[in-house]
Order: sequence, then C-alpha cells, then structure tokens
Amino acid sequence: MTYAIASTADAQRAELLQKKINFKTKPLGALGDLEKIALKIGLIQRTESPILTAPNIVVFASDHGIARSGVSAYPQEVTYQMVLNFLNGGAAINVFCRQNGIALTVADAGVNFDFEPNNALLDVKMRHSTSNFHDGTPAMSLDECREAMRRGSDIVGNIQAKTGCNVIGFGEMGIGNTTAASLIMHRLTRANISECVGRGTGVNDEQFERKLDIINEANSNAKIPFFGEGSAEEMLKMFAHFGGFEMAMMLGAYLKAAELRMLILVDGFIATAAYLAAVFINENVKDYALPCHQSHENGHKHMMSAFNEKPILQLSLRLGEGTGAAIALPIVRSAVAFLNEMSSFEAANIANKD
Amino acid sequence: MTYAIASTADAQRAELLQKKINFKTKPLGALGDLEKIALKIGLIQRTESPILTAPNIVVFASDHGIARSGVSAYPQEVTYQMVLNFLNGGAAINVFCRQNGIALTVADAGVNFDFEPNNALLDVKMRHSTSNFHDGTPAMSLDECREAMRRGSDIVGNIQAKTGCNVIGFGEMGIGNTTAASLIMHRLTRANISECVGRGTGVNDEQFERKLDIINEANSNAKIPFFGEGSAEEMLKMFAHFGGFEMAMMLGAYLKAAELRMLILVDGFIATAAYLAAVFINENVKDYALPCHQSHENGHKHMMSAFNEKPILQLSLRLGEGTGAAIALPIVRSAVAFLNEMSSFEAANIANKD
Repeated sequence: MTYAIASTADAQRAELLQKKINFKTKPLGALGDLEKIALKIGLIQRTESPILTAPNIVVFASDHGIARSGVSAYPQEVTYQMVLNFLNGGAAINVFCRQNGIALTVADAGVNFDFEPNNALLDVKMRHSTSNFHDGTPAMSLDECREAMRRGSDIVGNIQAKTGCNVIGFGEMGIGNTTAASLIMHRLTRANISECVGRGTGVNDEQFERKLDIINEANSNAKIPFFGEGSAEEMLKMFAHFGGFEMAMMLGAYLKAAELRMLILVDGFIATAAYLAAVFINENVKDYALPCHQSHENGHKHMMSAFNEKPILQLSLRLGEGTGAAIALPIVRSAVAFLNEMSSFEAANIANKD
Repeated sequence: MTYAIASTADAQRAELLQKKINFKTKPLGALGDLEKIALKIGLIQRTESPILTAPNIVVFASDHGIARSGVSAYPQEVTYQMVLNFLNGGAAINVFCRQNGIALTVADAGVNFDFEPNNALLDVKMRHSTSNFHDGTPAMSLDECREAMRRGSDIVGNIQAKTGCNVIGFGEMGIGNTTAASLIMHRLTRANISECVGRGTGVNDEQFERKLDIINEANSNAKIPFFGEGSAEEMLKMFAHFGGFEMAMMLGAYLKAAELRMLILVDGFIATAAYLAAVFINENVKDYALPCHQSHENGHKHMMSAFNEKPILQLSLRLGEGTGAAIALPIVRSAVAFLNEMSSFEAANIANKD
C-alpha cells in the first residue's frame, strides 16, 4: 500500500498568507506560534481562509504481549476496562472531546477481551494482543503490520467520507505500550535506551529497574537489523517486531490523513513514536502534523528535538488516549480564528509602523 | 483602601480534592498541570465541584507620557485607534473572547483621545495620558494611583455583582507601556535593567538602543528610593512614578478580584508587572492567580521565575490585550471538566495499581 502525500510547499500561497497575517492589527509576529499554525493550516487547505471541519479523535486500543513480562504498574485487564470506560463516556478523553466539540472514535485494534457488539466500538481487532517480544519473538508479523496499517488507514478514509472531517488526532490505550514505543524510538532516533524509557503509567523505582532490564533484554534478543538508515521495508520490520496493533493502525492512519490533506494533531509519547515511523516512510507527513503536547515521558523531548518542532502545549501530561491533542484543539482554533476574523490595519484605520 | 484577601489554604479541603483527583480513571498525576489547576480552583471556590461562571476579560487602555520620548515602534495614536478596534470587534482579543465565550469589557483608563459616548466603553479616564517620567517627573501622583486602583477595583466589583463572574482576566493597551513595565519590574525584582527590557511591539536595533537609553535615563532621573523591601506605601510611590493608569487600575482589579475569591487569569508582561505589585501588597493574591502565558518579552521569564510558577502556555505571544489569558481559558476549563466529569476507578470498575 502506498500513499500519495504531496508536500504543501507553495511559495505564492505562503506569501499571500504571510501578508494577510502581517496586516492584521497587531505588531509583526506578535501572535507567535499561532501565526505559524495559521500559515501551516492555510497551506494544507490551500486557502487564506481555512476552516476546521468535524474534528475527530480516534483512540486505538490494543494489548501487548510484553505486558506479561511485567513492565507496567497496571494489570493488562486495564486495557479492556478502559475501553469500556471510553464507551461509557467516563475517561479523560471523553471529557475533553465533549468540552471541545470533538467526535470520538474508539477502535479495538487487538484488545485481549471479547466485547459485546457495540455500535460505538469499531471492531478492527487483529488478535487478542501482540506476541511477547521479550525473548525475540516478533510482536507481529510484517503482514500483520501492513494489515493493521490498512485498517487504520481505512478508518481515517471512512471518517472523512462520512463527516467531512479535516482535522484529526490519534490516541491510544494499551498497557505496556510505553515499552514498545521506547524501543521504536531507540531504533528510529538512535538515542540511548536509558533516554528513551520513562515511568509510563507510573512504575516505582524497583519496577522501573525491571522495565529497563526487560527493554534491554528485548532489544538484545531482537533478531532484526539495528535499523536507522534502512529502507521503509526494514523500518517496518523493526516496527512490527516491537510495535502494537494500535501503533501500526496509527501509522497507517497518519499516512492516510496526510494523503487526504487533513490537519493531524499528534499526541504524546506513543503517538509520536508512530508519527516518527510515518515521517520515515514519507517526510511530507510533517507538513500536515502539529505536535500537540510535550509529554512528561523522558523520551518524548528527544523525539521532539529530533524533529525540530515545538509542541503546542507543555502541561506535563502522561496519559495518552489523545488527551494532549484534544486539549490543544482550542489553541489551533484560535490560530484559524485570528486569521479569518481579525481586522487589518487598513480596514480598522490604524497607523502601522513606519 | 484595604483589601481583605484570605489565603485559600485548607488542608482538609485540599485532601478531599486530591483524593478525588487521584481516584479518577488515570494513572496518579497523569493529568499533570491540569491537576494542579483543578486543585487551586477547588480551594478558591471551597468545593470539590467547582464551576466557572461568566468569564470576563477587562482591557484597560491608557496612554503614557514616555511614548513622547520615542520608546515604541508605533505612534501614540495607535492606543485610541486600537480602542476603537476593540469596540468594533476586530482586534485579537475580540476574536479570542468570542471563540471562547468570554465577555469583554473595555475601559478607557486614560487614553489621549475624546471618544464619542459608547455603552461598550467604560469611561474611567483619569487624564489624557500620564506625564512623561523621562526627566524625573512622576507619571502620576500617589493620589492618582490610588484613585485609579479604586476605579479598577470597582469595575471588578460591578462585573461580579451584575454577572456572577468568578473567573476574570486583565489585559491592557497603551503605546509605551512595556517601558513602564520594565522599570517596575526592575525595581520589584532587582533584575538588571538589560534583563527587563524587550522589543515591545517590535522596535528595530536602533530603536531598541534608544529605548534602553531612555529607560536608563528615566531610572537615574527618578527621585524615589530604589525600593525592594520597602512598605506598600513606598512600593506604590515607585509604581506611580513609572506606571500607567491602565496598570494602576489593573493593580486594584487584581486585589479586588482576590478579595471576591475570583479565579484570576494573569496575562503577559505588563499584566504581570501589575500582578507583582499586587502580590507585594498582599501575597495571598497568588492563591487566586493563574499565570496564563510566558510572554516573549525578555523580562517576563524573570518575573515568572521570581514567582516560581509555571505559566499555562508558552506560545511566544507578545501582544497584550489579555490575549494570553483568553486563549488559556479552554485549558482551565479542561481542568475543571476532568474534576467534575471523569469516572473514578470504583465507579468504572477498573483495576487500580497495587
């Protein structure tokens, strides 16, 4: 499956947008990062008057075999219990989506539980959890990874077709997935493992040492090339070895959303690991993506600096679920609103700088 | 005029709030700064279920005599022109207030212009601009400063009485007021002048050197004690010497809002200079205030570190008008929303950490 992702670069449009921004009734550049966001969205939508339509956050949930090695502070059952919480509207992501007028889509990518049929739950389950990569077994096969990407991609395509959505964020739920993301980050950024590992949901010192040991063991046991400057195929093998089904779906979802010229809200640590992989496959994805939150996880800062992009928020969240994307949306709306609604110096009869 | 500002400290309430926060369906502390904000608001409102009512941003506008010495990139006329822009709904603060459901109050604290009577403009004009403090003349007398504080204070009292408002932010418009704020900051924090001076609305290198010279001259010419550990009376003399009428009204407004147990949204550089003075007068003001935005102005970072508080946003804004407060409100709402709406582990039947 390939994705036709165009760069949004357009010197003429960028100049028109910058001019519109500069002639708003404010000192040059005074709206800071909001101006950059407005410019980015104008380029994505190929207009000086962008509109955000039917924002949607898709939460992909899946279980991880590595959880059975004891990397998390919480038992694996929490994954399915949290999915039920999403369906009942009681989780943080429900609250923030309701607050900010965001539609929430919940997808079972591979949870270790058989849910009752529920219209609010997309059943795209690959398996009941990935395999445990601790001993060198790949978490999923390359074929499974590609199939999960396709399913994630289809979800995005369907959402746009049905709702006209042009701004989308991706969240995740999966006990054990910070471990998977740490290893993917290590392989993609070449940062030391110790810099890639955080406390996840909040393991204590002893649990943290154990998590670090398991990650180091899993890394040594992996019979795959280190990877770093390899082909997309090699990168995907690495991704399949450590990744989760929710992450693979997210990867496909990023690529499809960029292909469909949607604005992409990138959440925290795990979402960014999948984003890094998407950018590896096609660098143009960056033109469509706004990093929304600087996660509290150790490694996330490194991921961000590797990308030379400043996230919209730095609120020390470490929850996942797409919460960083959901609470950043009002800021993105502010960027679009000033571009569309503020007066120009000329229209307001205000003296501009010499 | 004195203000009865109670500390919000309440160990029992804090424990109840923290317990409620900790039993939400998320890892302990995973909502980061949102948890601190929720706790703060719960203590202000003395409840575990706080509500934000009728948010309001008051923009105080005034002219500064020092503008005639040429410290700004813009002519003084821009102050009144921007007030007309506020009244016509075309400024950034109008856009963000509309977006986020915030009532906007515009007050003429001392603009060098005679406005047509307008119901949307509060006429609390002290004079047509402060005096020019460049040569050592005080910008305003101590009596004027106290009168301006009283007017600012009354505005807040009236807003609460009329609308039930319990969350309020203060913005400003006044060509030349970063110069005033720099000097107040220098005197209040003892930071070097060079660390207190920024580019304001965007002066160029030559203008910046001139601004710095003027600030240094004005500082030497001021026949007032340096100040730093003085009495509130001495602090006010300093504040009156350099300050603007909009800043003095803001100072009174902060104190009154805290007395009325309102949540206070503190905007950028100039708003923070007035906030520092309010905290000097009564440290309990801090219990009610949320710093909303890390301004791009050089000195603002120093002000913030002097206060050991992390602003909600860091978006490189340098516009004033209360814009930082206006775009931060949705994040504050997220904090209140999770506290009120998220399920607990028990209610959602989710396994908690051992």
